[in-house]
Amino acid sequence: MSGQARLRLGMVGGGAGAFIGGVHRMAARLDDRWELVAGAFSADAERSIAFGRSLGLAEERCYGDWQTMAQAESERADPIDAVAIVTPNHMHAAPARAFLEAGVAVICDKPLTANLADALDLAEVARAAHAPFVLTHNYSGYAMVRQARAMVAEGALGAIRVVQAEYAQDWLARDLAGNKQADWRGDPARAGAGGALGDIATHAFHLASFVTGAPAEWVSAETSRFVPGRLLDDDVQIGLRWANGARGQLWASQVAIGAANALRLRVYGENASLEWAQEEPDLLRYARLGEAPQILRRGGPGLSAAAQAATRIPAGHPEGYLEGFAQIYADAADLIAAHKAGAEAPAHARALPGIADGVDGMRFVDAAVRSAAEDGRWMKLREGAR
Amino acid sequence: MSGQARLRLGMVGGGAGAFIGGVHRMAARLDDRWELVAGAFSADAERSIAFGRSLGLAEERCYGDWQTMAQAESERADPIDAVAIVTPNHMHAAPARAFLEAGVAVICDKPLTANLADALDLAEVARAAHAPFVLTHNYSGYAMVRQARAMVAEGALGAIRVVQAEYAQDWLARDLAGNKQADWRGDPARAGAGGALGDIATHAFHLASFVTGAPAEWVSAETSRFVPGRLLDDDVQIGLRWANGARGQLWASQVAIGAANALRLRVYGENASLEWAQEEPDLLRYARLGEAPQILRRGGPGLSAAAQAATRIPAGHPEGYLEGFAQIYADAADLIAAHKAGAEAPAHARALPGIADGVDGMRFVDAAVRSAAEDGRWMKLREGAR
Amino acid sequence: MSGQARLRLGMVGGGAGAFIGGVHRMAARLDDRWELVAGAFSADAERSIAFGRSLGLAEERCYGDWQTMAQAESERADPIDAVAIVTPNHMHAAPARAFLEAGVAVICDKPLTANLADALDLAEVARAAHAPFVLTHNYSGYAMVRQARAMVAEGALGAIRVVQAEYAQDWLARDLAGNKQADWRGDPARAGAGGALGDIATHAFHLASFVTGAPAEWVSAETSRFVPGRLLDDDVQIGLRWANGARGQLWASQVAIGAANALRLRVYGENASLEWAQEEPDLLRYARLGEAPQILRRGGPGLSAAAQAATRIPAGHPEGYLEGFAQIYADAADLIAAHKAGAEAPAHARALPGIADGVDGMRFVDAAVRSAAEDGRWMKLREGAR
Amino acid sequence: MSGQARLRLGMVGGGAGAFIGGVHRMAARLDDRWELVAGAFSADAERSIAFGRSLGLAEERCYGDWQTMAQAESERADPIDAVAIVTPNHMHAAPARAFLEAGVAVICDKPLTANLADALDLAEVARAAHAPFVLTHNYSGYAMVRQARAMVAEGALGAIRVVQAEYAQDWLARDLAGNKQADWRGDPARAGAGGALGDIATHAFHLASFVTGAPAEWVSAETSRFVPGRLLDDDVQIGLRWANGARGQLWASQVAIGAANALRLRVYGENASLEWAQEEPDLLRYARLGEAPQILRRGGPGLSAAAQAATRIPAGHPEGYLEGFAQIYADAADLIAAHKAGAEAPAHARALPGIADGVDGMRFVDAAVRSAAEDGRWMKLREGAR
Repeated sequence: MSGQARLRLGMVGGGAGAFIGGVHRMAARLDDRWELVAGAFSADAERSIAFGRSLGLAEERCYGDWQTMAQAESERADPIDAVAIVTPNHMHAAPARAFLEAGVAVICDKPLTANLADALDLAEVARAAHAPFVLTHNYSGYAMVRQARAMVAEGALGAIRVVQAEYAQDWLARDLAGNKQADWRGDPARAGAGGALGDIATHAFHLASFVTGAPAEWVSAETSRFVPGRLLDDDVQIGLRWANGARGQLWASQVAIGAANALRLRVYGENASLEWAQEEPDLLRYARLGEAPQILRRGGPGLSAAAQAATRIPAGHPEGYLEGFAQIYADAADLIAAHKAGAEAPAHARALPGIADGVDGMRFVDAAVRSAAEDGRWMKLREGAR
Repeated sequence: MSGQARLRLGMVGGGAGAFIGGVHRMAARLDDRWELVAGAFSADAERSIAFGRSLGLAEERCYGDWQTMAQAESERADPIDAVAIVTPNHMHAAPARAFLEAGVAVICDKPLTANLADALDLAEVARAAHAPFVLTHNYSGYAMVRQARAMVAEGALGAIRVVQAEYAQDWLARDLAGNKQADWRGDPARAGAGGALGDIATHAFHLASFVTGAPAEWVSAETSRFVPGRLLDDDVQIGLRWANGARGQLWASQVAIGAANALRLRVYGENASLEWAQEEPDLLRYARLGEAPQILRRGGPGLSAAAQAATRIPAGHPEGYLEGFAQIYADAADLIAAHKAGAEAPAHARALPGIADGVDGMRFVDAAVRSAAEDGRWMKLREGAR
Repeated sequence: MSGQARLRLGMVGGGAGAFIGGVHRMAARLDDRWELVAGAFSADAERSIAFGRSLGLAEERCYGDWQTMAQAESERADPIDAVAIVTPNHMHAAPARAFLEAGVAVICDKPLTANLADALDLAEVARAAHAPFVLTHNYSGYAMVRQARAMVAEGALGAIRVVQAEYAQDWLARDLAGNKQADWRGDPARAGAGGALGDIATHAFHLASFVTGAPAEWVSAETSRFVPGRLLDDDVQIGLRWANGARGQLWASQVAIGAANALRLRVYGENASLEWAQEEPDLLRYARLGEAPQILRRGGPGLSAAAQAATRIPAGHPEGYLEGFAQIYADAADLIAAHKAGAEAPAHARALPGIADGVDGMRFVDAAVRSAAEDGRWMKLREGAR
Repeated sequence: MSGQARLRLGMVGGGAGAFIGGVHRMAARLDDRWELVAGAFSADAERSIAFGRSLGLAEERCYGDWQTMAQAESERADPIDAVAIVTPNHMHAAPARAFLEAGVAVICDKPLTANLADALDLAEVARAAHAPFVLTHNYSGYAMVRQARAMVAEGALGAIRVVQAEYAQDWLARDLAGNKQADWRGDPARAGAGGALGDIATHAFHLASFVTGAPAEWVSAETSRFVPGRLLDDDVQIGLRWANGARGQLWASQVAIGAANALRLRVYGENASLEWAQEEPDLLRYARLGEAPQILRRGGPGLSAAAQAATRIPAGHPEGYLEGFAQIYADAADLIAAHKAGAEAPAHARALPGIADGVDGMRFVDAAVRSAAEDGRWMKLREGAR
């Protein structure tokens, strides 16, 4: 991890009290590939400056709005190399567009936008722009998730038959009115049409797509609002039909009492299966038909180059959520450095979740909402799907 | 378990090479409440006699067909108190009817019949008969399943929101033509309209119903036949809407490589959740909102009377599948002994799965097959459901 | 398991309220190889008869003392084929001697006796007798324990380096005066010189010996009595040096709060290791150097003939404590039937724990007590050890 | 974690190819409390400069030896606030002394020194110096280890009876001659008198002491060298008697095939027990007598202030080894900042492992080596112990 020049990072959102902004900063720091140098942390200029100063930033690079920041940074001799956008969902599209148009790479939190139309618009912008776009579906940064993807790609499982994904939490089992994190996630104006759907089901959906390497084609959804007064779903139960013929269920819930952050994926092929759970991310269960299952471990024997490259410390010294997130940042540094150098990015950097994954996620949310409104009718995720 | 007179058991099916017949016999023996005294083990009289003799039965009570057996036993001074029917699905209804009509209690393997019509007919017979009927949804015999049921009934979870059930196996991940167990299960003439659906999804469905104490009202199903040449489903993905407002998924698969007999239930209420997995049946995870989850253990502290009554040995000395199955037989002995004595059966015996559960299971299979044929349209499980 | 004539079993001890007697009876019934026909269940003849009748025994074979029973049974035309001795430790030697001398096979609960002198005497008797002797170190009946033994024997681990054994319980964490099970186990006159040492450490010691196939040579012990007023140890911490050069620790405790019946063995060789825990007995972790660990499962792929022979039901249908115990009885039936027939017993029957294992266990207890008395000085387990 | 001025860190050792140096740097970066500004990374000045430059350091602060570094840094206007010493064991004492004497705080890798005499000397220096000393027994940085310590301190367990600690690895199961990490650890001249003893048993020993808050008084040891040609122990089996009357075993092995970094602690008191395993560090099992065990989780309900303070992200987003290590650095920043300000350090900073813990660890190694040489004779860990 040493020996590479640090890139300059800016941030939009993520001021005092924000959760995911702090996570992005820890993730960016861990592997020493980034230096945070600028930010529009708050819509209140004074608070933005105060917060930026507390992080050691120069006052002149603490902005009161992202418009000014995009402009000012693009005019500097030492502009930021990328901006991290860590605002609520409805505030992703506009700053992303502005920075992309200013030629600044974007590292955007998920889901891509608050609705599909914004996502499609932003995709147009991204296609036209000369700057990379990375979406922090951070769970794809875990070494053993990459191991799973590599194994599927190499054919270790054979044709995929069944994909079972789930993401269960319990922090919204009660009405949390007044909780900053809960409030915007429960507000259609800021979160979009999905509650648990946008917040966590998109992660499970991306994880399944990332590992299997195959797109989903059809979705059928049942959405519930179990907590009285809630405007957006807090539990979704989904059927998926995948382009490769696989079938599967996806369950996401924020009222699953006893579940902390239980993202889990199981993939069954004609020859073998894989099982991974985010709460014990260093492990991957691999079962071949007719053989005793194996427990693969990050840093341990039998791993792909992709998994080895996403590893910092030896087996048994657990890496966790921040390391997985940091991997996205480290790879984004490779991607963006290559872009700056006019070089082709290495494979692992090209595999980072990007704008297309973000659009897919929004198609998934959109189709699920429509399906639920029509009593679970199967909806195509995109035109041309069979 | 001592001190109670043994009841006399007969068996239909379960000859040499059968799997479930041997299980029933071990289950019946374990608690010493039954003595096997008669059987029609095979359609071939000689083989039936040979097999019965190998079990220590008198030759005169080894029959070549169940018709003769029903007749002969009912005429004896020491007739069987119950008959265990352990034939393939399509051979449940006729012998069950014959024995019920002869006044002999029936202990029948699941699913109840091969189709819903037979199930409804048999229910009529059972209603009219003066003999108890027990269906061996054996997983309801586990102490910790009863603990879960008791906790839900006592309100420990509050209103139920989500019910996630699954039953994964891998023994049919390949075509097993020639395997006796696989052959009849894959043959619509013997198994009925469901493959995994009838064989294992009915178990998961019953388990969920048994624990939550609430009926399911609507079902939506996606069924697959992943192994080429298969005539019946080997993987089913189901949505359920429960009468109490709960929502849930049910997944059953016999092609889930790496899964042995992975029946698992998770129930989430407004105040707490429960999680149980058949492969570690002595444990039950209980999580209350805002408290650290607890691991309840069979034989350990904090258990209901129902769980304590279904326990033979101290905590940490694992009880397994045969003990759970034996509990059905022990309770059936209580049920049938009370019936013989004209007394009311104790509560635990009245809670045994019976004819109504069998009909419910067949409604579930029937509705799932119809739903799958109509692209997953939600189907009512019974008239009058909302 | 079918098709073999049942052997006739008698029992000494195990009357109303006894724990292990009931376990022996369930174990003997499960595989239908034994029929209980006689017993001296209590020193009170009336109670013995009442209890025996409750089990369905003929009154004439319910004895008030084992002396009469040994005599009467040996004079019958249909004598018992074996007697199960399930009394407290100090009451093993005398009845065992009497039955052996009467030519009746003995199935004796562990530890063999209350002290080493009795054990050595009994071994003399057994050597001279024309009847088999089986000691119910029941954990050696588990399929996966036999799998472990077979793997070590086949060299899958290479030379053994480290053996870590433990057996933790918590039921004696408080003074249980008045509890029948606790009382005799805490009384030197009935239990012998060891508390946890005799009751559970002997199991862990036998398990380690059984799996590794090598004798221990030296022992160093630290014994504690944590509960005030206790006369015998409730926690022992032991070092062992094995004849094959391996080193290891053994910990047994009955005050380990939170442990139910946590017997666990780990064996490390130069090429691989094995790990087994009694509370999840169907699993065996097998790790080869440089490969991802495998989880072997009873009934699953990759098992030895020995493990397959000790299996009743398919993988994932858990077998537990009673099945493991039943295996001892099933194998004892093979051993004793062969003896009666004048034939050589099959290998699995010859591998049953017997009188030599019992003497080894008592040597272990005796040496541990002496070592603890001398501040942990290493003691030879037998003359001639290096 | 924001809003506090960064401290300046220097480093001795940790050049290209070193393992623990990189870990210290990631740990120091994560919470943004430190900036690495100086280092003597290699005894070769050119390599030290090249490496320091690769980390973004000014060339003038990349030194060829720690003597020069200590001198030069102490004369600067912006000297380092602390030095991290990450050299092999025998190279801890001399630089630590030099920096302490120069008034620079020391953050030193464990074990403290290569032998007890050096440790005692260094303790004298530390006592006289006006600078804090922190020893990176990093496992004490884990939130749930602190939770365990807090619970013991609050009396949740009552009087401690048994302490079982172990630390198993397998990376030295073979001769690794030529492996840089293995070579110095196996060389008495660099590692000291202990192999696994100094490298990992000291961690387990510290962990047990840290959690129970009680000193060990007596040690009995059996040490082995299983891999031919090895000069230092690769497996140690130890008995400990604690000042509070508790008894326990400690096992450390580097030849335990199948173990990755399996540090594990179990503490049993008269009322409850705790169990913690480093490979799943977010969890802590808490069992009270007569109640079902609970699984406490970092970030979850029911935690002490100490655990909450050592937490970055919500429950279920796993924190791992680097976060635990980072906690030591974050707390060290509080300790050293308070020292600079002439203020009393907060409690959590005062609880950091320091020079006394380092001396205790060396007493433990020294006594264990002596005990092993005398066939396991119990040795006092310090004068005055009972």
